[in-house]
Amino acid sequence: MIETLDLPTKHTGKMNLSSKRPQIFIIGGGFGGLAAAKALGKADADVIVLDRKNHHVFQPLLYQVATASLSPAEISAPIRTALRHYRNCKVALAEVTGIDVTNRRVHVHGGYAPFDYLIVAAGATHAYFGHDEWEPIAPGLKSLEDATDIRRRILLAFESAEYEGSEQARRATLTFAIVGAGPTGVELAGAIKEIAGRTIPEDYRNIDTRTTRVILFQGGDRILPQFAPDLSARAQKNLEKMGIEVRLNSRVTNITRKGLYVGNEFIPVHNTFWAAGVKASPLGKGLGVPTDRSGRVVVGPDLTIPGSSNVFVIGDMAAAVSGDTKEPVPGVAQGGIQMGQYVGRIIRDELAGKTTPAQRKPFRYRDKGTMAIIGTSNAVAQIGRFHFTGFFGWLLWGLVHVLFLVGYRNQLQVLANWFWAWLLNARDARLITGQAQLEVEVPFDVGFVRQSTEAVTDKP
Amino acid sequence: MIETLDLPTKHTGKMNLSSKRPQIFIIGGGFGGLAAAKALGKADADVIVLDRKNHHVFQPLLYQVATASLSPAEISAPIRTALRHYRNCKVALAEVTGIDVTNRRVHVHGGYAPFDYLIVAAGATHAYFGHDEWEPIAPGLKSLEDATDIRRRILLAFESAEYEGSEQARRATLTFAIVGAGPTGVELAGAIKEIAGRTIPEDYRNIDTRTTRVILFQGGDRILPQFAPDLSARAQKNLEKMGIEVRLNSRVTNITRKGLYVGNEFIPVHNTFWAAGVKASPLGKGLGVPTDRSGRVVVGPDLTIPGSSNVFVIGDMAAAVSGDTKEPVPGVAQGGIQMGQYVGRIIRDELAGKTTPAQRKPFRYRDKGTMAIIGTSNAVAQIGRFHFTGFFGWLLWGLVHVLFLVGYRNQLQVLANWFWAWLLNARDARLITGQAQLEVEVPFDVGFVRQSTEAVTDKP
Repeated sequence: MIETLDLPTKHTGKMNLSSKRPQIFIIGGGFGGLAAAKALGKADADVIVLDRKNHHVFQPLLYQVATASLSPAEISAPIRTALRHYRNCKVALAEVTGIDVTNRRVHVHGGYAPFDYLIVAAGATHAYFGHDEWEPIAPGLKSLEDATDIRRRILLAFESAEYEGSEQARRATLTFAIVGAGPTGVELAGAIKEIAGRTIPEDYRNIDTRTTRVILFQGGDRILPQFAPDLSARAQKNLEKMGIEVRLNSRVTNITRKGLYVGNEFIPVHNTFWAAGVKASPLGKGLGVPTDRSGRVVVGPDLTIPGSSNVFVIGDMAAAVSGDTKEPVPGVAQGGIQMGQYVGRIIRDELAGKTTPAQRKPFRYRDKGTMAIIGTSNAVAQIGRFHFTGFFGWLLWGLVHVLFLVGYRNQLQVLANWFWAWLLNARDARLITGQAQLEVEVPFDVGFVRQSTEAVTDKP
Repeated sequence: MIETLDLPTKHTGKMNLSSKRPQIFIIGGGFGGLAAAKALGKADADVIVLDRKNHHVFQPLLYQVATASLSPAEISAPIRTALRHYRNCKVALAEVTGIDVTNRRVHVHGGYAPFDYLIVAAGATHAYFGHDEWEPIAPGLKSLEDATDIRRRILLAFESAEYEGSEQARRATLTFAIVGAGPTGVELAGAIKEIAGRTIPEDYRNIDTRTTRVILFQGGDRILPQFAPDLSARAQKNLEKMGIEVRLNSRVTNITRKGLYVGNEFIPVHNTFWAAGVKASPLGKGLGVPTDRSGRVVVGPDLTIPGSSNVFVIGDMAAAVSGDTKEPVPGVAQGGIQMGQYVGRIIRDELAGKTTPAQRKPFRYRDKGTMAIIGTSNAVAQIGRFHFTGFFGWLLWGLVHVLFLVGYRNQLQVLANWFWAWLLNARDARLITGQAQLEVEVPFDVGFVRQSTEAVTDKP
């Protein structure tokens, strides 16, 4: 027995560790981790969810925070509150620094704990294909902080363009590049074009924000490669009708603050956003088992790592194949949710003595469909053999996304916000927050004269 | 004529500066600045609003962002959008670094501009009475960034207490001190007590958040000194009924990360918030005219500075007296709004040739009432000779605050949020955001063993 502090608790009145219940640790409170915790809600075990953040984020709607349609609180919920009614679940704000599979220990800053079962669901982050120096210039979209950072950059670009003295620099400031044309890239491109073209033109006096260029770069030969080719073609046509430039077979070879290179071609653009690639959390590599090119752990049919039937890896961290189709499980919310439920039920049933590890059935992924929004009142959706586009696709997209949001009140708020946005082109979360330095030009147009800073400080 | 760039604009098709229209600069897009800009909306002049932020903030509701009831976007609006329909108004994101009254110039980083009229409305910030070292420990509440910082500190305190090993430290973590019992201090104290007592108790397993202590320190002999004594007494009784400790005649003499001193008494408390004093923007002192103890500019009956009939100072930056009562104008939103309207109309009428500076009538402040909320379904309000308390005061408070919010959609959102909060004790914006380091304890209760960081990194 490990030595611990004698900490009385309000619920049991005695030390929790004096209980001999199995301890199940879940690393990460994303889609996979939350689904696993809920599936274990009635297990006779302590379930401990560790996360660096106190909140779960509904990632499919992050781009709407980045483009000022929704507020951070509307697409997130405290993990504690999501698990409030699962009395055997505990939540701890902690950063996992290592996993010791041999000794069955989870390490955090300043300590470690023994586990009986471990579910690793720490997700993925941006991958810059060996060009990590692009990250500060071309931020990706994975967290609420990323989203408010991108929002700040978009809004500052218009502020800056309004008083930019050089026509050339103003054009580059009013150009946005998005690298990667998966759902996030497509949705970001569409939303930026709509802000510029419909939401804010009346707010500016010197620039016509409707002239804003949005360029979407895709390395492959079609956008939205997760979809059937007819939907990719339809989506591209719609984006182009909105005025977005789609560049296929275009590999970005360098990104600077002034612009980006596609081969030898230089495109002046002051804001580039990254939606091209992800890599799994580095915790995967720390497990000492094989990983794939993007750092995902190659898991067995029961989502465990080789040699450890009590260590599971799920969600974006797992390179898993579906037991029936032998197809790779895609890195989408549904993949995480289904893996979490599968693992949670396995552990629950084995703890209850209903099954044994030898009897585990392979994980099967059920494709519930894929969707991407393309501007107002338009989306593409693919559900089994059925393909939807246009207004009906958009309604379907809205319905599905609202249904899966955590929190009933969030669902109503988001619906209300969408209704207003649709009715009035309103995007009310247009806040430039944070202590970011103002990098906008001296406002020439209102009579300002440029002067070196030294000279200014001479004046009163 | 000053040399400027030849910048074509979409609206006029020619340089703006080639027009000889007077240039009116407004520094600050708060209550005073916005009111002035709107009053000048039909003046035959260019009106330029300069602000470091792109958004106007409805400060009376900031405490609700700090206490997770509202999102930042719900109490703010882009200044540009607020002035969208005033076609002679321009907005520039700029930090004013100095004002040259003699040469009639406004300086920003990197340049300056000539003005014909200047309205200085840059507001106030926290004052620590000569103890600026307290600022990082005991933050105040003036901006959206302040509000999300305080929100983070409050929520992190509960996370930290949940796994704190020492009973003594846990008690200090579950204690909040608020210095200053004006409306902001009272409202902050009430909201923290409600979060702890009603919103989150079910979320925690080891601590009973209902035992959270909230202590409100007031230097004077009653809280809410802006109100009549009977309302102060009533408010204090209500706060005490909620379990808040009110300490009158208590001057805080030192604040550290471990606690605070009132004279020789040390009170262990890990989170102190500052609502005790404000000082005017330093731009006031830069004008070279007399200021009062808190840095406010002593203005004449027409709110101008001595010797310059075209330089006005309004809002929290002005030490003004009302022309009729000779009473000081209080530092509240209404003061700023009324001064802004007064100055805007003076300039408009003089530009139109209807009046001359010699004919200016003194500014008169009309007290439209004062209010403060005290927990759910309770507020004190004083409107002229009428005093309101309890539920009716609370309804009145809500009505007035929603009416004055900028933006119709914000008004509906805030009303909806209040309704939910009232119905379900929900405070859904409980987000710990920002890259703040996790300072919470190793979660002992879930089996963690404390270990020095060196030892941890030896492990896998």
